[in-house]
Amino acid sequence: MNTLPKLSNQQIRLAARPVGLPKRSDWAFTSEPVAQPEPGGLLIKTLALSLDPAMRGWMNEGKSYIPPVAINEVMRAAGIGVVLKSNHAGFAPGDQVSASLGVQQYCALGSADIKRSGLFKIDARLGTPNQWLNVLGMPGMTAYFGLLDVGQAKAGDSVVVSGAAGAVGQTVGQLARIKGCRVVGIAGGPAKCDWVVKELGFDACIDYKAGNPRDALKAACPKGVDVYFDNVGGEILDMVLARINRKARIVICGAISQYNNTTPVQGPKNYLSLLVNRARMEGMVVFDYADRFPQAVAELSGCLRDGRMKSREDVIDGLQNFPEALLKLFTGENFGKLVLRVAAE
Amino acid sequence: MNTLPKLSNQQIRLAARPVGLPKRSDWAFTSEPVAQPEPGGLLIKTLALSLDPAMRGWMNEGKSYIPPVAINEVMRAAGIGVVLKSNHAGFAPGDQVSASLGVQQYCALGSADIKRSGLFKIDARLGTPNQWLNVLGMPGMTAYFGLLDVGQAKAGDSVVVSGAAGAVGQTVGQLARIKGCRVVGIAGGPAKCDWVVKELGFDACIDYKAGNPRDALKAACPKGVDVYFDNVGGEILDMVLARINRKARIVICGAISQYNNTTPVQGPKNYLSLLVNRARMEGMVVFDYADRFPQAVAELSGCLRDGRMKSREDVIDGLQNFPEALLKLFTGENFGKLVLRVAAE
Repeated sequence: MNTLPKLSNQQIRLAARPVGLPKRSDWAFTSEPVAQPEPGGLLIKTLALSLDPAMRGWMNEGKSYIPPVAINEVMRAAGIGVVLKSNHAGFAPGDQVSASLGVQQYCALGSADIKRSGLFKIDARLGTPNQWLNVLGMPGMTAYFGLLDVGQAKAGDSVVVSGAAGAVGQTVGQLARIKGCRVVGIAGGPAKCDWVVKELGFDACIDYKAGNPRDALKAACPKGVDVYFDNVGGEILDMVLARINRKARIVICGAISQYNNTTPVQGPKNYLSLLVNRARMEGMVVFDYADRFPQAVAELSGCLRDGRMKSREDVIDGLQNFPEALLKLFTGENFGKLVLRVAAE
Repeated sequence: MNTLPKLSNQQIRLAARPVGLPKRSDWAFTSEPVAQPEPGGLLIKTLALSLDPAMRGWMNEGKSYIPPVAINEVMRAAGIGVVLKSNHAGFAPGDQVSASLGVQQYCALGSADIKRSGLFKIDARLGTPNQWLNVLGMPGMTAYFGLLDVGQAKAGDSVVVSGAAGAVGQTVGQLARIKGCRVVGIAGGPAKCDWVVKELGFDACIDYKAGNPRDALKAACPKGVDVYFDNVGGEILDMVLARINRKARIVICGAISQYNNTTPVQGPKNYLSLLVNRARMEGMVVFDYADRFPQAVAELSGCLRDGRMKSREDVIDGLQNFPEALLKLFTGENFGKLVLRVAAE
């Protein structure tokens, strides 16, 4: 039985339910001795955490697709870690795993947790740890099943995706291109727009912060929109609703423009375009597709390997920077999948 | 060749595009000699016209699923008529037909019009002319394909329908009951609510004008909502969105609460319930199902014949009363399918 030096586990806990954007005082910085794994359990050292818009929803009280993070609970976060100690036959020290690790340096998981957290070994040949949080992780899975299953995108379709330079958007757009669609992104600022067109091969990208995005969308989609993959909600959702084609599919993946509202969510006032166009708007939660993740990982890692798909992560160092890092998602400052590096491999 | 006495054709034309509720001055009352049918055409005497919420949309400028009624054009209306004169081999004087006749006493249709207007002979054995405008007409077809195709209602589902005592709602609810669903209506006032429960066999009906409809919906749907057939939009759509189940289907058939708005349409601020519940909201236009109308007519007329389904029409007499009659739809005064009787059979 291997032993470990006495280690301290830095953690960030939810101290208060935020009103609007989370403030520093909504967090508590705590430290406790590293727990030892139970029989059948694992002790994992966090390497990198995924920062996701959905985290904002987990901080609110009320019914959602998963229970909220409780006050004083370690903030929930998906991440990549390395097994330090294993009491589980399926894992050995040194294995890299993807799991719900929480915003902390170390995570001890019991055998029930291992199942519940969706923990699995990552295959380093298929992608870097950062890519396992991006194209091969939840954002990539969300893009894959959202675009192909919910959105039913097919060759020749005109596909629009908002948050185009973000984690989900970058894979949605590239996958749509690979499937033979015409792809238009929506992103904030010329740097992101240039990148998705020049590097990722989108047909066009609309800078929603510049000029008249309504006219730009019309120009970029002269034949209308067959699939809209919505990560942002608000005015942009309404703008696209006004341009959809008959039988269009709108995938509701998120609504980042609305997550920090202190007023009610802005409903899409153009929703009757669904009626006129016999179109549909459908929500998705990636966890529903867990059985089919291997299929998506196989296809997406193949695209990464042969160069048809690129990935970009925006990496911030240091667990203690979590509160400020998270805010970058809501100000749109992140450029690519936002990752918090917690420890070197 | 049979001849007709010189007849005058009273007509109601769209004089101005209404702002809000249509006013008397938005209409022009005109009269012209009855036209003679072209070779291949028909002269039809209007018996009854269907008054539908969709008519309000046809009066607005702008792109929709059909072109707007032009200024000075006879107002568009579906109706039942009797053939007075036929130059078409498929029709004989005395045949009763369903067609887009317009708000006028007589309608001369050329052979191209006959095709375009969706004209067909009605079978008096299957239903009365009023029923051919209701359960066996567009409202019934809308109910049938909206509930079963778009809404995918199946036995055991919890189905909610707004405008429950209206033309579409009455058939949606009864058909859902026949298919083994639990059915809850939403209607205005105790008379309508009593009728849909006691006469039509709905499991419950919520009076949206009384008490707290939110609590009433919760009590009436303790297991949530699987299918919501929306005829009204606005606050009621939001109320139901807050109660939907996972994988729920919301059929967007209409939004009568919004048609006379002079402010922007109220978007559903609870639309993110679609995401949380992996649910969908889908628009429908009944004309898309024209090929399958015979199937629906066969099933629905069977239900009428064996007494499993009832129908109710709210009949107003006289072409000249069209402007006021139409308004009853928007004040919710009509009780059952609103029909304008233009002439005796």
